[in-house]
Amino acid sequence: MSPEDQPLKIGALLFDGLDQIDLTGPFEVLSRIPNSTYRIYGKSLEPVRDVKGLQLTPEATLNKAPQLDLLHIPGGPGQEALMEDEAVLGWVRHQAAGARIVFSVCTRALICGAAGLLKERQATTHWTARHLLPYFGALPSDERVVVDGNLVCAAGVTAGIDGALLVAAMLRGEEAAKAIQLYMQYVPEPPFNAGSPKTAPPEIVESVRASAQDLMIRREATAHRVGKRLGFALPSKA
Amino acid sequence: MSPEDQPLKIGALLFDGLDQIDLTGPFEVLSRIPNSTYRIYGKSLEPVRDVKGLQLTPEATLNKAPQLDLLHIPGGPGQEALMEDEAVLGWVRHQAAGARIVFSVCTRALICGAAGLLKERQATTHWTARHLLPYFGALPSDERVVVDGNLVCAAGVTAGIDGALLVAAMLRGEEAAKAIQLYMQYVPEPPFNAGSPKTAPPEIVESVRASAQDLMIRREATAHRVGKRLGFALPSKA
Repeated sequence: MSPEDQPLKIGALLFDGLDQIDLTGPFEVLSRIPNSTYRIYGKSLEPVRDVKGLQLTPEATLNKAPQLDLLHIPGGPGQEALMEDEAVLGWVRHQAAGARIVFSVCTRALICGAAGLLKERQATTHWTARHLLPYFGALPSDERVVVDGNLVCAAGVTAGIDGALLVAAMLRGEEAAKAIQLYMQYVPEPPFNAGSPKTAPPEIVESVRASAQDLMIRREATAHRVGKRLGFALPSKA
Repeated sequence: MSPEDQPLKIGALLFDGLDQIDLTGPFEVLSRIPNSTYRIYGKSLEPVRDVKGLQLTPEATLNKAPQLDLLHIPGGPGQEALMEDEAVLGWVRHQAAGARIVFSVCTRALICGAAGLLKERQATTHWTARHLLPYFGALPSDERVVVDGNLVCAAGVTAGIDGALLVAAMLRGEEAAKAIQLYMQYVPEPPFNAGSPKTAPPEIVESVRASAQDLMIRREATAHRVGKRLGFALPSKA
């Protein structure tokens, strides 16, 4: 356990159309950090649905959040609607300015980008969206989890579990993180070797990319528009 | 994709005090099986809280469930209260009798045991509860994911993700499972090697065991009582 024994306030933003495991994977880790509270904030108190329908309910509205020590921001297709939502972006900016750690999972990096948090910082996101990071002045990394100052980015979806264990260690020391990992019996054994576009069979990479194509086109248009408004030098379109 | 193109009905049981990732980890995989629906059933329609407070809401009550093709049963400390709840055990037994696959994650194996489903079958559960499996006539396995007939058991917590990918392959073929794994970017890189009592530092194993001790004692008493009622030869107490 690290010598720091101040209580930690951890909070996450919940929104319609998130990818639930970007929230629930890290929740499993972060809600077990000793001497901490983990609360979920929403624009309203209504339940929301993840992109595949799971119903989740926030604990409180955004304006009720104290300054958080750790801001956890999941991703998912619903991130699209938030990238031009000034109320949410302002909240993210305000919280990020005072937080010890901002932890972004998956495509939520694009919301951080839209909030102007990624300028000249190493970042990552879901493999289908990594090429969009330069729209926000970010430096895309190949790592699964990237730490740059107080910003921790995890790549797609399940990378949030790995990232959360690292965040737990940053906040409370390795012993605390290891105890959580043991509780979670986290010794993964994926039955196939298809979790990355580098290892999956090419025809499967193509089929996943094809099924995400509409979303990818929409995302790129939004990234272009938002990046332009923020005044970044825009990359040529992929 | 496997030649089977019948729509699949997948359902999970939600209960107070579950460990949310036993539900949400496999949900991430199973809700993406082609040509399937995934619904969550509860004793009532009220939201429930996981053991660390996450609010989840069922879609329908148990009595509204059709015969499921895949029954997904998460674990967590709340399993304790269900082990003598005949309404729930009856539902599990009834669904299991007609399901193609019964998929048990973590301590939910104890509910399967209480429903009489584990007799003379290979099974596993969270590492702190594995010694209880013989109370239900089960044969404890060391594997992370165990398949015995139509029963698939995953060990603690995050093993549910590995198990769910295997279940997806059993139902729809390896190509479908690999596409889901790629979408999830599931190439885990745990930052520490502490996920199993075999690899974690001994003092951390001891501290996790100590913090679970009250629960372990209660669980053993329940397992003893329920196993006796079911008429199994009881192991000597650990």
